[in-house]
Formats: sequence, structure tokens, C-alpha cells
Amino acid sequence: MQNNPPHRIAIMGGSGYTGCELLRVCATHPELKVTGVASRAEADRPLSEVFPSLGGAYDLSFVTPDALLQQDYDLLFYATPHAVAMHTAAAVLERGARVVDLSADFRISDAEVWRTWYGVEHVALGLLAQAVYGLPELNREAIVDASLVANPGCYPTASTLALLPLVEAGALAPSRVIIDAKSGVTGAGRGLNVGNLFAQCADSFRAYKVDGHRHQPEIESVLGSVATLPPIKFVPHLVPMLRGIHATVYAELDSPDLDVQALFEARYQSEPFVEVLPPGQYPATADVRGSNLCRIAVHQEGSLVVVLSVIDNLAKGASTQAVQNCNIMFGLPEDMGLAALPVAP
Amino acid sequence: MQNNPPHRIAIMGGSGYTGCELLRVCATHPELKVTGVASRAEADRPLSEVFPSLGGAYDLSFVTPDALLQQDYDLLFYATPHAVAMHTAAAVLERGARVVDLSADFRISDAEVWRTWYGVEHVALGLLAQAVYGLPELNREAIVDASLVANPGCYPTASTLALLPLVEAGALAPSRVIIDAKSGVTGAGRGLNVGNLFAQCADSFRAYKVDGHRHQPEIESVLGSVATLPPIKFVPHLVPMLRGIHATVYAELDSPDLDVQALFEARYQSEPFVEVLPPGQYPATADVRGSNLCRIAVHQEGSLVVVLSVIDNLAKGASTQAVQNCNIMFGLPEDMGLAALPVAP
Amino acid sequence: MQNNPPHRIAIMGGSGYTGCELLRVCATHPELKVTGVASRAEADRPLSEVFPSLGGAYDLSFVTPDALLQQDYDLLFYATPHAVAMHTAAAVLERGARVVDLSADFRISDAEVWRTWYGVEHVALGLLAQAVYGLPELNREAIVDASLVANPGCYPTASTLALLPLVEAGALAPSRVIIDAKSGVTGAGRGLNVGNLFAQCADSFRAYKVDGHRHQPEIESVLGSVATLPPIKFVPHLVPMLRGIHATVYAELDSPDLDVQALFEARYQSEPFVEVLPPGQYPATADVRGSNLCRIAVHQEGSLVVVLSVIDNLAKGASTQAVQNCNIMFGLPEDMGLAALPVAP
Amino acid sequence: MQNNPPHRIAIMGGSGYTGCELLRVCATHPELKVTGVASRAEADRPLSEVFPSLGGAYDLSFVTPDALLQQDYDLLFYATPHAVAMHTAAAVLERGARVVDLSADFRISDAEVWRTWYGVEHVALGLLAQAVYGLPELNREAIVDASLVANPGCYPTASTLALLPLVEAGALAPSRVIIDAKSGVTGAGRGLNVGNLFAQCADSFRAYKVDGHRHQPEIESVLGSVATLPPIKFVPHLVPMLRGIHATVYAELDSPDLDVQALFEARYQSEPFVEVLPPGQYPATADVRGSNLCRIAVHQEGSLVVVLSVIDNLAKGASTQAVQNCNIMFGLPEDMGLAALPVAP
Repeated sequence: MQNNPPHRIAIMGGSGYTGCELLRVCATHPELKVTGVASRAEADRPLSEVFPSLGGAYDLSFVTPDALLQQDYDLLFYATPHAVAMHTAAAVLERGARVVDLSADFRISDAEVWRTWYGVEHVALGLLAQAVYGLPELNREAIVDASLVANPGCYPTASTLALLPLVEAGALAPSRVIIDAKSGVTGAGRGLNVGNLFAQCADSFRAYKVDGHRHQPEIESVLGSVATLPPIKFVPHLVPMLRGIHATVYAELDSPDLDVQALFEARYQSEPFVEVLPPGQYPATADVRGSNLCRIAVHQEGSLVVVLSVIDNLAKGASTQAVQNCNIMFGLPEDMGLAALPVAP
Repeated sequence: MQNNPPHRIAIMGGSGYTGCELLRVCATHPELKVTGVASRAEADRPLSEVFPSLGGAYDLSFVTPDALLQQDYDLLFYATPHAVAMHTAAAVLERGARVVDLSADFRISDAEVWRTWYGVEHVALGLLAQAVYGLPELNREAIVDASLVANPGCYPTASTLALLPLVEAGALAPSRVIIDAKSGVTGAGRGLNVGNLFAQCADSFRAYKVDGHRHQPEIESVLGSVATLPPIKFVPHLVPMLRGIHATVYAELDSPDLDVQALFEARYQSEPFVEVLPPGQYPATADVRGSNLCRIAVHQEGSLVVVLSVIDNLAKGASTQAVQNCNIMFGLPEDMGLAALPVAP
Repeated sequence: MQNNPPHRIAIMGGSGYTGCELLRVCATHPELKVTGVASRAEADRPLSEVFPSLGGAYDLSFVTPDALLQQDYDLLFYATPHAVAMHTAAAVLERGARVVDLSADFRISDAEVWRTWYGVEHVALGLLAQAVYGLPELNREAIVDASLVANPGCYPTASTLALLPLVEAGALAPSRVIIDAKSGVTGAGRGLNVGNLFAQCADSFRAYKVDGHRHQPEIESVLGSVATLPPIKFVPHLVPMLRGIHATVYAELDSPDLDVQALFEARYQSEPFVEVLPPGQYPATADVRGSNLCRIAVHQEGSLVVVLSVIDNLAKGASTQAVQNCNIMFGLPEDMGLAALPVAP
Repeated sequence: MQNNPPHRIAIMGGSGYTGCELLRVCATHPELKVTGVASRAEADRPLSEVFPSLGGAYDLSFVTPDALLQQDYDLLFYATPHAVAMHTAAAVLERGARVVDLSADFRISDAEVWRTWYGVEHVALGLLAQAVYGLPELNREAIVDASLVANPGCYPTASTLALLPLVEAGALAPSRVIIDAKSGVTGAGRGLNVGNLFAQCADSFRAYKVDGHRHQPEIESVLGSVATLPPIKFVPHLVPMLRGIHATVYAELDSPDLDVQALFEARYQSEPFVEVLPPGQYPATADVRGSNLCRIAVHQEGSLVVVLSVIDNLAKGASTQAVQNCNIMFGLPEDMGLAALPVAP
């Protein structure tokens, strides 16, 4: 296992939008070098043919998943659909590479809950127990030495960061917490279904999966590992925009005397990628576009607290957070390759 | 006062988007004839120069507000900013015309509450007492004979229709009701401010007025006239789309045994413009574009109920609802001129 | 063959966007009644399940194409992909129904040209000879008695109306005519391909089929039937919007002394659906949204003329033009059911 | 005059979108340090309050223009409206700073032409003669030593790069060249006018300034300095997207035997920011979003050549090109701070 920079990076399932975003960020990362990218569907096609925005940055073609599994590298990103990584992660780890899984396979610690929501039996229970949930703001120290990091989902990243200070402080009343979440359309991936067509999404807004979305148990799993939770209801909506998640979180406090603004500022004071806005300012998704930032605003009104939490779903909600985890795992500066400001407007 | 068809219609403040939408609908309404349109800013310009979409439908130019007040007509629509109608409505009524006010001047029955939220003293307290809140689904009979109808706000229309069956049935627990509302950008009007620029809104999503929006007391006023309410928190958001409001309402039931789907279906069964979707279907704003429809979906989960309510903010949220009220006031079929299907996609 | 109103209408291939648009317009047309709609993919599903925007307007489900061919009706709209109508149109005509084909099968009179561009042999040469190209502004009289109308393509409608007065007047120099055309994404239909995904189209602009698009020979065929043409180059582009075509046409005049504005105004003076704008005004696609209008502006600069021509691709570019043709065929007022103003903004 | 890195940078007129984009890029540029930013309208407000996307990158507030003129720095970017820089540039140069003017003041070498199009007398004729047009692909060597660089306009950058190889090769016939150009809405700036409102631009497409746009004489001026030109007609259009310019250029060749693809590939082979696509691929604006790239495709058909040229109007069309010029002027690697890949989708 080579482990000196530049670290050799492989990407499994690189033909989706999170794969493209990993490639975008890694291209200018000074200590990471992408050496292999797999896609069953696009095998043998040059990267830049599938993703013209990559231009001449890579002189690579997609390979098959099997071929990638035979290559040597220091870390593998899974950017696959769920229920793929759990089949081959053990083999990758055995060859001495580390793994950051951007899919859902290792995010929910309870295999039974996982099975209920993902509809298949988990086949890597041992790895499930050993995986570290890759939210650096919660698990930074455990990530350092982790072999297998479960990169958080997009909605869970925004939602968990919105609730974490309150949960850690034991500040919530037992009343239901509402997470009304909104996502840009890239969150639905590059798969072909009518609902993702421009003509079905543009100039329109709708909710979906109101009766239950897989990111709710993930949020409950990670926050529930911190403290006992009140009941949570999570409802996602689709926004006619490319990137961005906006979680509007409503919760009741045990005591209206808590200074929630101060609590959040203190909690995230030294976090390089979480910014708590001054009172009265509210975040727009455009203002984190393309960046690893999470911007949070807090509004308090008696015992009610409303938290607004904004990320780029492909970036902090997936690929740049994966690189952040990778930086931590390799002992690199946490913001290496991630310092570019949001592209706005 | 002439009152045989075609009824003569005047529009005060016709150079905003609700004015344009009134003109669009009235142009093909068989029993209404627009005879005068006022705009201080656009006086003397032909309508079709300001609104090219009107094409050759009108051979009219904007007049000044003063000039319009001297004209004869059967009904005047105020499509003005707030605190305008209250100054001249009495004079209009005295001349024998009826009034539908699309602004906020007569929507909140408590003048003190109105003053708090609109920042000026109400100058027409007598009319305030006499105005009928123009939500046909609630006040149809009172609208018939009303001289002065307060046309509901866009958010209140979507929100009130989402909560009305529950409030009327006394089905709500005392827990807080959350109204997480989302609007297209035309809701902000045609006024010039940086926040309404394409470059500030497109491909982005944000909340605004989290600390208090004028439509919350309106919702509380109208629903509070039906029954005692639990506390309500209303938070509006801006969606990068032209038209449409999506209210996602979260409420707790007194009893989880209530069949909320059945309650809504029964309540709106004979309403021509409210459609309750079958379980599991959720409305998209595009599917009401340009129409007077409100489409509602209900999701129930123990004592929690989530109601999704969708309208076009310029149509059922403003101008087509105003024409619906006008139809009722003139004894015309309620859907006259309003039967066109939504323009989707 | 029944032929008194209401005329019975059938739609073959009704599950695409032009099918949905036909259903939208026919729903409020006073003399047309849709009695059957076929879609192989959606057979047996209620119309309103596939197109929620139709709401309760129809109490119909999709049937199979075979089933539809057995039904009775007065007129059949083909809203199918190309190379479908030519197989069954003869049978439909034999049963006494008339046909408006919104696909390309009967638009190009030269079967050899058609084969070159559509890649299959034409199987209904007799009908091809007998079909009338359904551009009312050119062929109104022939449409009256036509059994089979070839409804024009979207780009050809905008482009032909932009050039027709110049071609008829013999005003063009032999220099190349450039048609730089731009279309909203619904023009690509409801088919599943990556290029139509929201994430591939939103906030972006691109050209396509620069080396040759099937609408160029259609434009050449119809205008070439009027007079000899200079060479034409047509390049289409994709705009991140739902509906709308904007053709920017550049041509050289034989003589700079021609008053092009006057020529266009005279040519279209009595056309109900073509509006020539005053000098210095330019049309926006939003200002024809959902309507059967074509709005045209002319700019002249020496021997150069620039014509801007705007339509809604699903409306005048497809379905409302089909209804316009249908009105003409049935002897109804040409604008019946088509008078609604554009939905703008 | 300090001139060792980090070079001190000032921005005059920093509260527009090009100012924001300059700040975005300079924030992570290793050898540039922004030390002062002026805006009359926003003086005294922190940068991050006006542009939330800048987050904590700068600990600066806007100053007045007068205050900025008194500061010390190595280079000043003018990101002002036209007819501002010409009044103070001489003073800035006299203090020993260099100037890159992103406005139009020094782009057109003929003062008479400038006056005709900009409507005011030029007041810095001496500087006009000395300014270097900052298109590195044309004037790289002159930029190295320039004190005053006129940064090209957005449309001229895309259009000139599309035509330059043909003009340099003397390959054009005397027939008219058509530049049909399309721009995202940020090109119109952050100024308040109705035409820039979301509700006026979204889901719509239109041409503007068909009778003459100031970028046409700029294109003629720069290309005319290379060789005698055929007549040119430039028509701009507004696309409902944030960023991006797509120029579709139509020209006639002197000889159909020229291999235009080869000509372009050879001309731009060593240019770091111009990419000539393989035959049959066409560029999308999204694929250059946020980057300094120009991507060009060529289509040839007999004597006709169609060139598609795509840039980000705020980046290569303004601010990143300004930084590219700045890099050249300071002897830094030309791509320093500009290597980030486009943010797509």
C-alpha cells in the first residue's frame, strides 16, 4: 500500500453526477491523483466524452468495474447506486486500499432498519459495524483512522448539521421535529425516468415520497447515536434548479431561555465548512454552489426554533464532503482542494 | 348602476402582474367587459405596449387613478399595493359600483392587527367591518350580496384551503401548526428590487421573512373566525419559477382515528375549483398553471397530518379568484371564463 | 360519417406533449368532443393519471392503437412519432374519418427527399400526393376540403411564416438565407434520453444537429412550392425553457428599396393568428405561451433583412395549429376554442 | 511601486457581477491580494454582506471611489459602467499602478466610432492610443508590457475567437458574416430595470438591440486590425440562464477547399484556454460555467462555415480573462488561479 502523496484514487461508478463532481474536484487537488474510473455503462469511453466539462483534465477512459477492482490505488470512492458497494468493499479493503462510500450501504448502523428501507438483505454486516459515518463535524477523529467511511447522504448532511447542536445540548422538547427539505434536480441522479425530464421539472415545484424517504432513518440513525430523539418527520421536495439543498427545520425547545444563535455559533466556531449566519440573514442555495460549505441560519420565537441549512447536494452533500473525508484520512489539510469559493450568481 | 351583462369592469393599478392576469382572463370572459384601467406609472400608454402578451385584445390605454375614479363601471378591481384601496373604496361604492380588492386592505378584520403588520393606520374602519373575505369555499353566500370583497392573499388561499376542513371539524390538537410555504417569483410583483432580478433568483432557493410575514395574521384571522386555533408558524420561501404556490402544512390531530382523506374529499366534493388527489399522489405547481384550481393531497401518519396544497399565485391566488368572486357577485355561473385547463408542461 | 357538431375527435399517440396539448385545447372547445385516445405505452391508464393537469376534464382512459382504429369518429389526430401514420391513415380515411397528422409523414411532397431524411421508405405515396400542408396562412382554401392534412413542424411554422412574404414577393437575392432557430425543451418530446434531463438542459444553451435537421427540407419543400429559393441553412438550438420557438432569419434582398415592414403588415393584415409588431419591438416567446399566435418583427438594414418569428412549439407549432386546421375543415370559425390569451408571465 | 508577489489588487466598481467574479477568483489566487474595493452605492458595507457567496474570504468593506484612488496597489481593475474609467485611469497610471479596464472605455481604437456608439465624447484620447486590447490569444506579447489593458467585452470575446483563424488566414469571401449571439442574464448586470426581473426573463427567449449593439463595432475594431473584413451583422439574444454566451457564426469561405477544422486546431493548439472540439461535437454553455475556457466547434458545408463559440460571460467574457491578463502582465503562469474546472451540471 502506497500512501505518500500524490495518493492514487479510484472511482467506482463514475458516470453519474457525483462521479463527475469527484472528478472535477480531484483534477485540481494537489495531492490526489485519479488513476482509474469505472462505469459498466460507459466502459471504454473517454471521460471527457461523457462529461465534456472535464475537457482535457484527464487522459483516462472508463473501465469496467471488474477491471477497476484489479487495479492498485490508495483509496476507492464508491459513487454507485445502493447495494453495490457492500458486495465488493471487503475485497477492496483486503487489498490494502481505503474506501469512502458515497452510496447508502454503510450509513445506517442497524442492518434491520437498512433492510426495511432498501429492500434487500445487507451482505456485509461486519463492515457495517466497522464503518465510520463520514460527517467530519461529528466524527472527525474516528475518520482519521477509518478504513471504511460511509459518506453521508445529501439531505442528512444538511439536516444533521441543522439539528446537531440542539441534540448534543439536549435542548429539544419531546414534540415532533419537522424537516421540510428541498432539493435541486441533480439529487435525483442521471438515471432516465420521466420525472427527471426538463419538461417535468422546470418551472414547477412538488413534494415526493411524503410517506417515507430513506434519508429519514439515516438522520435518525446518526442523531440517535448522539442522544435520544423526539419523533421526526422528513418531507422532501423537488426545486427547479440544478444544485442545492435547503432544509427548513422546525423544533420545539425544552426551554425558551436557551440562546440558540449563541449555541450554534459556539458549536461551529472552528468548523472550516460550516458558517452560522448573523441573525436576520437567511442562506440561498446559490451562495454555496460548487463549494463544500454549509450555511446555517437560526430563528427563535419562544420555544420554537427554525433552522435553515443550505448545502450543494453534489458537493458538501456528496463529492466534496467525500474529498474532505479523504483529506482527513490521509492527514492532509482538511480544506485542501476545497477552498474555491461558490460560483454565484 | 347598470348591472346587466356585459358587466363593465375597471381595474385600479393594472400595471402589475395581477393586473395583467385580470386582463388576460377578462378578455375572453363572455359577460365581463373591461372599460378602464388605471396606472399612475403607465398612464397614457396602450395596454399592449406594457403587456405585449395582451396583443390586440384591448383597444385601451392606461389612465390615471383619478381619471378612473370618475368613470362609470359596475365593478372595480383594486390590483394596487396595500394602503391604497382604503382611501378611495368608499367613493367608488358610493357611486354604485361594487369592489373586489386584491390588495390586503380589507382582509384582516381586526384593525389593530392590520396596523401592526402593515405599519399604517387603517382609514376605512367602517368598510373593514362590512367587507367579506372572498374565499368562495368558505364565504360563498356572503359574497353574493357583498359590495366589498377582500380577495384573499396567495399564501392564505393555499394555506386556508389546506387547513379549513380540519379547523371546521375541530380535529386539531393544540400543538403548533407548521405552514412551510413556497412561491414562484411573480408573487413578489413587478417592483424593482435587487432580490427580484433573474440573476438573484434563478437556480437558487431561499427562505425570507422567517421572522414574520403579513400572510400569517391573515391566515389566523380567517381560520380564527371559524374556530379557536392552535399556534401557527408560517415560513415562506422563494422558488425559481414564475408561478405557483406550494404550501406544505404539518398539523397534529386530536385523534389518530380521524380519516383525513375522507374528511377532505367530503368537504370539497362539490367545490368546482378544489381537487383532492387520491392517496399517494402529490400535486405539482405546473399542473395548475394559469388556472383557478387548488389541488390538495393529504398524508396521515398516526396523529400527524401533512397537507400539500397547490395553486397558481397569480390565478387562484389573486386574479382568477377575483373573477370567481365577481361571477358570484353578478349571479353568473361560478366558473364562467375560468374553465380553461392548466397550461402544462 | 357523422359531421354535425359536436365533432367526434380521436387522438392516436396521445401520451406525448402534443397529445396532452390537444387534450387541453379540445377540453374547452365548444364543438369538438374527444371520444378516444390511444397510446401503446399507457393503454388502460386514465388520462388524468398520465397528465394530472387534465384533472377531471375527461372521463377516458387510453386505449391501444388497434382499439382506436376500430372506433368511430369524425377526425383523427396523429400525435405519433414519424413513420407511424403512413401505415394506417388510409384505413382511417376509408372509414370516412378525416385526418390531421401532426407527425412528419405527409409534410414533404417529394418521397425521395423524405426517405433521405427519415431513413425509411414511404409506404403511402398516394396519400402523400393528396395531403395538404396545413399552414392556414398559405393553404387555407385547400384545407377546407382536405381529407388529410399534414400539420407543419414547429420550426417550419415559425420559419415559413418569417419568410413567406419575401418568397411570395420574389424579393430575395440569391445569397444564402440563414435560419438560426431556438426551441424550448418540450420540442424534444417526452422520450427518455439523457439530453432531455433537467440536469442536462437547465441553465445551459447549446446547438444540435448543426450538420442537418429534418425541418430544413420541410421548410425548403413548402417554400419551394411557392417560388424558387436561394440556398438555406437552418441551425437549431436548445433553450432552457419549456415552450417556445424563436427563429432569427437573415436574408438578403434583391433591392434595398423594398419596404419590408409594409410588405409583412400587408401580407398578414387579415390573419387572425399572425401579428406583425411595430418597428423596434421584438417578440418574446413568453408572450405567446399557450396560444396559437405567431408574432413577427422585421428589421431592415440596407439589403439585409432580419426577421424574428416567435411561436409556442406545442401550440401554433403543433396542437393548436392542428385545431385551427380542424376548425377550417369543419367549417367552424377559425379561432373557435383558440381565443385564450397567452399565459404570461 | 511594489511589484513582488503577492501583487496588491484594487477593484473599482466592485458591486456588480463582474466585481463579484473578480473577488471570487482572486480569493484563491496564490499571488494576488485584493487590498481595496470601491463602490459608490455600497460604500462602508462589508463585501460579504453584499455578496454572501464570498463568505469569510475577505475582511474588507467597500470604500468610495475617491478613497480607492488614494490607496496604493499594483494593479487596478475597473469593473465600472462605461465612461467612468476614462476619467481617472490617467491618475491611477501616474501613481505607478497598472490598469485592466473591464468596461468599454478603451476597447475601440477609433474615438469617433466610440463616441457614436457610447454617446459621449472620449476624454482620454492619449490613453486610448496606448491601451492594449486584452485578448491574450491575439495580443499576448503586447499585454506583457502594457500599462493599460482594455479587457474585451463578453460577446466580442466569443465572437472574435470564432472568427480570428478565418480572418488571419484571409479565408473569408466578401459576403456578409452573421453573428447570432445568445447570452445569459448576468450579462445585463445587476442594474435595476424591468427587463432583468426574473418574471420577465424566466422561461422565455427574445432578441434585443437588433438594430445595433455596441459590441458589433468592438468586434469590427479588433478583427479589422488584423485584416480587411466583410460586412458583419451581430444580433444578440437573451437566454433564461445565469451565465454563458453562445455565438453562432455564419460565414462564407473564399474557397470550399479550406479545411476549417484543421485551421482552427492549428491556430489554437497551444492556447491554454481555447478548446476546439472534434467534428460533430457541439459545446454547451454549462460545460464552461465558472471557468476561463472558450470551447469552439466548426461545421463546414461547401463554402459555408458555421462556428459555435461558447464562454462564460462573467469569466472568460470578463473577470477571469481580466485575471488572465493580469497574470501575463505580472509574468505569472498564465493559468495561475484559473485552473478550476467548470462547475457542471
